Amino acid sequence: MTTANPQNTEQATVQLAHGSGGSMMQSLIRDIFVQAFGNIQLEDAASISLAGSGANRADTQISLSTDSYVVQPLFFPGGDIGRIAVCGTVNDVATSGAQPVCLSVSFILEEGLPLADLKRIVASMANTAKEAGVTIVTGDTKVVGKGQADGIFINTTGVGQLPAGRTPLLARAILAGDLILLSGSLGDHGMCIMSQREELSFAADLSTDAAPLNHMIADVLAAAPDTRCFRDPTRGGLASTLNELADAAKVRMTIEERSVPVKPAVQGACEMLGYDVFQVANEGKMVAIVPHEQVEAALAAMKASPYGKDATIIGKIEPLSDEEKCEHSLLNQENFKVQLRNAFGATRVMDTLVGEQLPRIC
Amino acid sequence: MTTANPQNTEQATVQLAHGSGGSMMQSLIRDIFVQAFGNIQLEDAASISLAGSGANRADTQISLSTDSYVVQPLFFPGGDIGRIAVCGTVNDVATSGAQPVCLSVSFILEEGLPLADLKRIVASMANTAKEAGVTIVTGDTKVVGKGQADGIFINTTGVGQLPAGRTPLLARAILAGDLILLSGSLGDHGMCIMSQREELSFAADLSTDAAPLNHMIADVLAAAPDTRCFRDPTRGGLASTLNELADAAKVRMTIEERSVPVKPAVQGACEMLGYDVFQVANEGKMVAIVPHEQVEAALAAMKASPYGKDATIIGKIEPLSDEEKCEHSLLNQENFKVQLRNAFGATRVMDTLVGEQLPRIC
Repeated sequence: MTTANPQNTEQATVQLAHGSGGSMMQSLIRDIFVQAFGNIQLEDAASISLAGSGANRADTQISLSTDSYVVQPLFFPGGDIGRIAVCGTVNDVATSGAQPVCLSVSFILEEGLPLADLKRIVASMANTAKEAGVTIVTGDTKVVGKGQADGIFINTTGVGQLPAGRTPLLARAILAGDLILLSGSLGDHGMCIMSQREELSFAADLSTDAAPLNHMIADVLAAAPDTRCFRDPTRGGLASTLNELADAAKVRMTIEERSVPVKPAVQGACEMLGYDVFQVANEGKMVAIVPHEQVEAALAAMKASPYGKDATIIGKIEPLSDEEKCEHSLLNQENFKVQLRNAFGATRVMDTLVGEQLPRIC
Repeated sequence: MTTANPQNTEQATVQLAHGSGGSMMQSLIRDIFVQAFGNIQLEDAASISLAGSGANRADTQISLSTDSYVVQPLFFPGGDIGRIAVCGTVNDVATSGAQPVCLSVSFILEEGLPLADLKRIVASMANTAKEAGVTIVTGDTKVVGKGQADGIFINTTGVGQLPAGRTPLLARAILAGDLILLSGSLGDHGMCIMSQREELSFAADLSTDAAPLNHMIADVLAAAPDTRCFRDPTRGGLASTLNELADAAKVRMTIEERSVPVKPAVQGACEMLGYDVFQVANEGKMVAIVPHEQVEAALAAMKASPYGKDATIIGKIEPLSDEEKCEHSLLNQENFKVQLRNAFGATRVMDTLVGEQLPRIC
């Protein structure tokens, strides 16, 4: 697998790896989207300030997040594309510290999709929106011919409102000494999908973790108001999420491997199929970076949530050496920002996913 | 072509006509989406009130609109899928009376799409956003395998803010006696696309009208503050737009055929290919319903815009008879709500598009 920039030739084309949440997607974003859309924000949700009017009226801070969902198969144990489409966007909006308020939904339907499947997906979206406490307020439907899409693609875009006085949570607020919390076991969603595709015999033990985590985030913020930021480890898994955070905050992280919960069936599927569980997508897990003095309160709040009962502290933020702080040095040491320490104290690099791992996982 | 409800059987599947903006799409929306998403709003943009906090703080009213764009071909005279994706959503947000503020953008890319095409589309989106005065603040990219999509699909979702003191413009505000304005010629976008697909010899004379109309709408509202509502006649054309408005407001409309501008090349293409220009999609035109006493001011404001110099008054809102006001009667007379009067004074029904006319027009 190559890390060369394949977008720098005239004949270059989009590859599956451009959508996998790893380093190729990052360079596509940097080289094409950031360059054209100068004001695009690279957090999971963008923060926008709407001007108040008249005297005594403060600005209103909103958060906006969008995702298109192309997961295949459409239905799987514990969920379906509709549940993922609501959870993923609700969670992204919530990571900014905003309370998700409403969603738009846009369908691209392939001619020939059974209407019964569409109804089942739409019902699942309605139920999940209710679970999250958000309203689906507007929508759009497009139809393309047979063979021009694959069943159904769904875009959801979410709007959240920041409570008065809260500034948006940003990765760059992370400080050395902060602790890293994970709300539960890794790899459930990704290995559930892969086991369906590969028709694994133990697929029955694997189920998506897809869940709306906005209420859990609100509870953590109430208990630990100085929480630096949240991030849901979806495409590219925990490894890509932590590397993105480390890049943004210019810090080093150490993760204790034995502290990271992984279910036996997930571990088994990863070994059988050759996946690194740290690079596998999750749809119902949240990473929180919390200052040391508030970590117990944050952990207790997570554990009190039905979606966070297996929450643990998985690692901490390390200070950079003076040498590492030098920008030139940073550029050459991108691979050293997140370390994984095993039970025997040995460390290895937890690297961002490079190529394609699990296409169409969400 | 049948008007029977094909979604009412277990074996029913999605058909191209479900996406064409006509009556089959309306029944899909009614039977599936409205039923599941009880709070979905059927205007082009949804209006959401965000609660103010503290004393003296008013609610902030935002508008939210989403569309996925699947137009084929990706590039055509006067525009491309990127320009359409920005204009369409900006225009939908603006129809509510809101000032569009920002957009999210989400790409579904097919493996093998030339990156040069993606760059060209992204540059076009950036330029069009600048023309409209909106910021693209957040995005998402998914990649699907070769043959699982068709080049590129783009979702844009727009957020607008309503000026303080303005309530969202709604179709039900339309009253008998109001006049109907159209900002320019009909059918340019739809026949441009069809001429590309059919490789017509006179294709050179056809160009999309795609344009961001938010500034024109703001100017009309400043000049004619009691304007009832705006609507852009996209999929399904002017006929579907007017029928939707008439349904929502429970009014009858009469359109003067000779007042509706149609370019000769568009008229020729419609005749050659067998399309009704009133059912053909537009991407840079706006319908405004204006009270009689403000119509001259509204028309002057439209004509002063570079996108509205051919604006005209095309018809008026008629009162319903007492019989028509009876709900039972209305249900049976759906086809009689918009009348087209020709130069000789004869009238015919301007009907909503029923089946599929121009798939993947936007």
